[in-house]
Amino acid sequence: MEPGQPGGSGPAEPGPLPRGVRGAGPKASASPPSGAEAQLQRCAPAVAAVLPAGGRGERMGVPTPKQFCPILERPLISYTLQALERVCWIKDIVVAVTGENMDAMKDLIQRYQHKRISLVEAGVTRHRSIFNGLKALAEGQRDAQLSRPEVVIIHDAVRPFVEEDILLKVVTAAKEHGAAGAVRPLVSTVISPDADGCLDHSLERARHRASEMPQAFLFDVIYEAYQQCSDYDLEFGTECLQLALKYCHIKAKLVEGSPDLWKVTYKRDLYAAESIIKERISEQIHIVMDTKEDEEHIGHHFEEMLKNELNHVKVTSGSLCHPGRDLQQIILEQCYNFICVNVKTSEFEETQKLLDVLTESNISILYPVVVISVHFLDHKSVPIGQKMENLMQIREFAKEVKKRNILLCGLLIYCPQYLYY
Amino acid sequence: MEPGQPGGSGPAEPGPLPRGVRGAGPKASASPPSGAEAQLQRCAPAVAAVLPAGGRGERMGVPTPKQFCPILERPLISYTLQALERVCWIKDIVVAVTGENMDAMKDLIQRYQHKRISLVEAGVTRHRSIFNGLKALAEGQRDAQLSRPEVVIIHDAVRPFVEEDILLKVVTAAKEHGAAGAVRPLVSTVISPDADGCLDHSLERARHRASEMPQAFLFDVIYEAYQQCSDYDLEFGTECLQLALKYCHIKAKLVEGSPDLWKVTYKRDLYAAESIIKERISEQIHIVMDTKEDEEHIGHHFEEMLKNELNHVKVTSGSLCHPGRDLQQIILEQCYNFICVNVKTSEFEETQKLLDVLTESNISILYPVVVISVHFLDHKSVPIGQKMENLMQIREFAKEVKKRNILLCGLLIYCPQYLYY
Repeated sequence: MEPGQPGGSGPAEPGPLPRGVRGAGPKASASPPSGAEAQLQRCAPAVAAVLPAGGRGERMGVPTPKQFCPILERPLISYTLQALERVCWIKDIVVAVTGENMDAMKDLIQRYQHKRISLVEAGVTRHRSIFNGLKALAEGQRDAQLSRPEVVIIHDAVRPFVEEDILLKVVTAAKEHGAAGAVRPLVSTVISPDADGCLDHSLERARHRASEMPQAFLFDVIYEAYQQCSDYDLEFGTECLQLALKYCHIKAKLVEGSPDLWKVTYKRDLYAAESIIKERISEQIHIVMDTKEDEEHIGHHFEEMLKNELNHVKVTSGSLCHPGRDLQQIILEQCYNFICVNVKTSEFEETQKLLDVLTESNISILYPVVVISVHFLDHKSVPIGQKMENLMQIREFAKEVKKRNILLCGLLIYCPQYLYY
Repeated sequence: MEPGQPGGSGPAEPGPLPRGVRGAGPKASASPPSGAEAQLQRCAPAVAAVLPAGGRGERMGVPTPKQFCPILERPLISYTLQALERVCWIKDIVVAVTGENMDAMKDLIQRYQHKRISLVEAGVTRHRSIFNGLKALAEGQRDAQLSRPEVVIIHDAVRPFVEEDILLKVVTAAKEHGAAGAVRPLVSTVISPDADGCLDHSLERARHRASEMPQAFLFDVIYEAYQQCSDYDLEFGTECLQLALKYCHIKAKLVEGSPDLWKVTYKRDLYAAESIIKERISEQIHIVMDTKEDEEHIGHHFEEMLKNELNHVKVTSGSLCHPGRDLQQIILEQCYNFICVNVKTSEFEETQKLLDVLTESNISILYPVVVISVHFLDHKSVPIGQKMENLMQIREFAKEVKKRNILLCGLLIYCPQYLYY
C-alpha cells in the first residue's frame, strides 16, 4: 500500500486544513454531539472507512472515470472525501485507486488538503478493491499510519452527499448486528426476463429495497468474509452485505436512508450534483462596504434590494473597517458570495482588502468564491475615460484571483445623482 | 371524459402550432422516415397514448405534484406532451389528471399550444388512471374526438426525454407480442428484507431489470386485462406488463432503453432535467448585425471570439437586411440564443427588428429565447449621459418581451477606438 502523502518526502499529513475549512461542507455544523453521537463516543469503537474508487465509469458516457469528473472544477471524489473527513470519529479513510490514477489522486489530496487518507491499489473488480483496502487496515500494526479498526465503513466514491447521521446509524447498527447497510425504496418495478427477453415475472415493489451505501461491518466479520470469498464472488458479486451473510452467517441490519445517498451514475447525475452544490453554496450573500456613516445607507439599500430578490438566500452586510471577528465569522458560516461596495475609497481599495481576507482564510480551496465589486459612475466628478481605464484593472485582478478559485467581477452603476441623496 | 380544449367554448383543437414549433423538441428532425418508421407507416396500426398524471409527487418533497413542477418556468408535463406530440403517428394522447388539476391542465394545453390531447379524470391510483384513459379510447366510437386504437402506448408524465426511436420499438414489439416495455439495467442491487428489517437475501443484479416506460400493448389485450383486473391489483399493483401476463397470459417483450428514459422522482431529478434542457437549447448561438460592409468585421470578430470560448456550441452570423429565409431557417433549426450587434443604426433598431421576427415566429412559447443587445460606447461622438439615458430604454424593452418568454439584456462595450479600425 502507498500512504497518501504526495511526492513521498513530504510530511505524513498534508498539513492542517486552513481555519474555516475543516468541516467545510456547506451543511457542516459546530454543534455539540447529538445523543447518538455522544453514545458512540462513549463506547468509542475505532472506525475506519474504505472507499473503492477503481471504477471506470462506462455508464457515464465520458472518458473520465466518474469519480474524477469535475463538479465546479473539483473532482467528484473530493466532495466524498470531504463528507467523510468532516466526521471526526472516522480515524482513517482508505481509498483504492488504479495505478494509472494514483498520481492524480495524490495531487488531488494535496491540492484540496484532504486528511487521514491512505491510498491502496485498486483490484480489477469492486470487491477486490475493497479487499485491498481491508488488507491495508488489517496489516495496520506493521504500519504506523493505519490501525485495525473495530468497525469499518464501506462507501462509494461517487456518493458525495453522505451525511454524518446515516454514517452514525450504520456504524451503530453494525456494532450490534455485525453488519448494516443503507437501503432506499425502489424507484422502478424490478422484473425478471426469461431466456427470450420476455417478461418472466415482476417483483412486488413493496417487498424489496434498493441496497445503497454506506454500509458498515465489524471489521473481523467482513475481513473474514473476504478471506473466505470465492473467486467467482470476488469477480461477479456486487453486494458486500451478501458476502457477510454467505460466509459469516451475519444478517445485516437494513437502515432506511435519505434520498441524498444516491449514486452519481449517469451524466444527468453530475448535473444534479452540481445544481445541489451550487444551491448549497448560494444560500448566503454578504455585502461588504466602507463604513463612512453618511453612505451606510447604500449598503443597507443593497441589502434590502437583494432580500426582495432572493427569497431563500440569507443576506447580511457589514464592514471591513473592523476586520477580524465579523468577517471571519461570516466565512466560518460558509459564506461563498460577497458583494463589495466601493463608495469613497480609491477604486479598488475595499475590494482588495476583501480579497486579502478571503485569500488568507483559504475558503476557496473547496468551493469557488464569488466577489462582485461594485463601483459608481458619476461622470461629472471624474472624467469618464479615466474612470473606465481605471476600472479595466479589474480584469487583471480577476485573472489573478481566478487562480485561487475566486471569481471576481465588476459592476459599474451609472448614478449621476449619487452624491445628492 | 372531458375533451382537452380550454374553456369549453373554444375550438376542438387548441389551434395549429406556430411555424417552427411543431416538432419543436431540440432534437426533433425533419428527416425522412427511417426504415422501421417507414415499415410502421406501411402496416400503420392506429396508435394512441395514455399518460397517467394524477400522482401527488410525495417523494419530491415539494407541495406541487412533480408533473407540474416548472422547468425553465414550463411545467414538466408539457415537455413530455411535446415529446409525444412531435411523433406524428401517435394519433391521440389521453392524459388522466385529478379534478383539482383539470383547469390548470387545460390552461397549460392552451398556453403551450399542445395538440391531440384529451383529458380524463384520474383515478385514486395509477392503474385506475390508466384504466380511465383506456375506457375513453374504447368508447371512442361514441365520441368523434377519439377512436379506438390498435396499439396503445402507456407512458409517464414525468419522463420528458422519451425519443421517437424507443416509442417505435415498443409499438412494433407490442404489435408482434401483444405487449412490450422498456427496461434498463439495475443501478443498485435489489435486496429482500426479512420481518426484522434484516437482510434476507439479495438478488443477482445481472438477472433482473428495472421496468421503465414507455410500454405498449395491443389495445384489446390491455383493455381486457384492466377489465378483468381485481380491485387489489388496481389499488396496489405497479406494473402494467404484469397485468397483461396475469390476466391475458401475454408475455411482454422487453426492450432495452437508453438512460434518457429516467423518471423525474426527486428534486435532484428536476435539477438534472433543467440542466439537460438548458444544454440542449444552448447548442447554437446566432449573431445578428447590420450589414454595412465596412463593419461586417465586427460580427465576424464576435463569431470568432465566441467560437474560441464555446467549444460545443454552433456559432453562426448573418443579417436582418435580407430577413426571411436566413433567419427563418435559423429559427427552424431550434436556435434560442441571439446576439444582436447594433453598429450604425439608431440605438435599438436592429434589436427591435430581431424581436419582431422572434415574436412572429412564436418559438418562445416552448423555450425561453435569449437576446443580447450589443451597443458600443464612444463618448467622443455622443455625450455619455445621453447615451446612457437612451440605453436605459432597454429595461422597458426587456420587461415587455419577458412576458413573451424572451430574455433580453444589454451589453455596452466601451470602445473609444471603435471608429478608427
